[in-house]
Amino acid sequence: MVINVLELIGLYVFATSGALMAIHKDFDVVGIVVLAMLTALGGGILRDLIIGDIPPAAFTNANYLIIPLIAAVVTFFVHPVMRRLAFTVLVFDAAGLGLFCVTGTLKALDFGLGSLQAVLLGITTAVGGGVLRDITARETPALVQVDTDLYSIPAAAGATLVAGAHHTDLPMPVVATCAAVMVFLFRIVAMLRHWTAPRAWTRNGG
Amino acid sequence: MVINVLELIGLYVFATSGALMAIHKDFDVVGIVVLAMLTALGGGILRDLIIGDIPPAAFTNANYLIIPLIAAVVTFFVHPVMRRLAFTVLVFDAAGLGLFCVTGTLKALDFGLGSLQAVLLGITTAVGGGVLRDITARETPALVQVDTDLYSIPAAAGATLVAGAHHTDLPMPVVATCAAVMVFLFRIVAMLRHWTAPRAWTRNGG
Amino acid sequence: MVINVLELIGLYVFATSGALMAIHKDFDVVGIVVLAMLTALGGGILRDLIIGDIPPAAFTNANYLIIPLIAAVVTFFVHPVMRRLAFTVLVFDAAGLGLFCVTGTLKALDFGLGSLQAVLLGITTAVGGGVLRDITARETPALVQVDTDLYSIPAAAGATLVAGAHHTDLPMPVVATCAAVMVFLFRIVAMLRHWTAPRAWTRNGG
Repeated sequence: MVINVLELIGLYVFATSGALMAIHKDFDVVGIVVLAMLTALGGGILRDLIIGDIPPAAFTNANYLIIPLIAAVVTFFVHPVMRRLAFTVLVFDAAGLGLFCVTGTLKALDFGLGSLQAVLLGITTAVGGGVLRDITARETPALVQVDTDLYSIPAAAGATLVAGAHHTDLPMPVVATCAAVMVFLFRIVAMLRHWTAPRAWTRNGG
Repeated sequence: MVINVLELIGLYVFATSGALMAIHKDFDVVGIVVLAMLTALGGGILRDLIIGDIPPAAFTNANYLIIPLIAAVVTFFVHPVMRRLAFTVLVFDAAGLGLFCVTGTLKALDFGLGSLQAVLLGITTAVGGGVLRDITARETPALVQVDTDLYSIPAAAGATLVAGAHHTDLPMPVVATCAAVMVFLFRIVAMLRHWTAPRAWTRNGG
Repeated sequence: MVINVLELIGLYVFATSGALMAIHKDFDVVGIVVLAMLTALGGGILRDLIIGDIPPAAFTNANYLIIPLIAAVVTFFVHPVMRRLAFTVLVFDAAGLGLFCVTGTLKALDFGLGSLQAVLLGITTAVGGGVLRDITARETPALVQVDTDLYSIPAAAGATLVAGAHHTDLPMPVVATCAAVMVFLFRIVAMLRHWTAPRAWTRNGG
């Protein structure tokens, strides 16, 4: 129940980030809806196609489609306010990141995939929609660019924690909650301190 | 039978639009074939992967592969003529749009998906190939750009009509035909009158 | 056994080409890992989703994930050396190309797909990862560009050879080996002689 509410919030926030990108790129209303849905649902759809949950959850529960549509419509009208709320949006986005990497990992484990594979699919659930958003908007994916604040690395840490605890006696609801909170805080601190991932190693440290 | 002939015409026209884009971008013959196939088959493959019709129809009926190949070869040789026929190509493309959004919606309903989901997959069938074409050719997808004539909105209207009629006693062949014709006419008028979708709302109406 | 070793070498080399692209584009370490995995695994994942081998092989055998990770880490540190080894990398890449188009075609035939479809999926296995790498890195896919040395055409030739022999009495291990070697040599010669595919035909031969 709490998970469901959090998940719908995550969808809403991810969709908002897609809609804001579309407005930033001066796309029309179709572009706003497309980017909102792609950002919110893309990662989960990729995960479900790979683990074999077909049709993907996004196509079996109408809420998964309606929430991003609502986010697109709201953003269409109130986007100037959203920009002033940029940091607030990023905070919710961090919550979505934490939640989606944990639920994605758990779902992959449920479908019998190995730990390493489940970690990869947890990360995919959390960041896949953003990559599809960036590719469709013809932006270099934030995921791969240098000098963007850490995003996938907190997700990877949370997914690893969940997958690692899966073969222990630890109570999964507790582990999952801790992992999601850890990812959230890790991401927030990474943003505030502008932590970035290193570029390729060179002898001169460049 | 009529549907099948129309569907093959739709594939041919979509493939031609992909091949013309490749020639416009000065790609080589491999690029022409790749964009032709991707444009014609991409939307249907995405739909089939999601509804669970695996292997996708494009891989079970050789005609689906042969028609785009023929379109690529023909366009390779006669593209200067095709350009003079640009409006004719757009008319056939509108026919393909109407047909694909209707058949895509019907197929999703047949596989047990809900109405909203079927509408989304009908639109995906009709416009998905074009989006993949644009992404591969490194163009901003026409789908999301402002100031392009309406394309997905006629498809959405047609898909909604079909899904709405699905739970009524209306005879589906009649509804489907009407929906396809409506999409076709809607798209043609949108092109002639340069109807465009709005960009995001601002207080100054800008 | 030999096939398995060759396949892991192919994965390693494809992953290296993705990692080098990421470094060339000045992406960070996340980008290096993402492009390495996408290049190595993307083509096979697309093939498996389409033929219905779900979860895809990349998610059932941990080696498929570990090898590209190792390649990413090694390239992260020794990329200046790799650049001096550019031609060596291309030679291994040609070996990967030959191997993947043959194993991809065979797997599609095993899953009951027709010859034409199997050829298309063999090519997809060999070149799909590279296309996803280029799209994610915001490069025009080398696959479709004019004046790049032949890459997909050798793969198409090898896949056609394998699919053509499938309905004969020829011993498949021998055919498959010959096809892979032929693709390898075809690709190497195409590189050395800078063979390119033609652009669209014009009356003036232009």
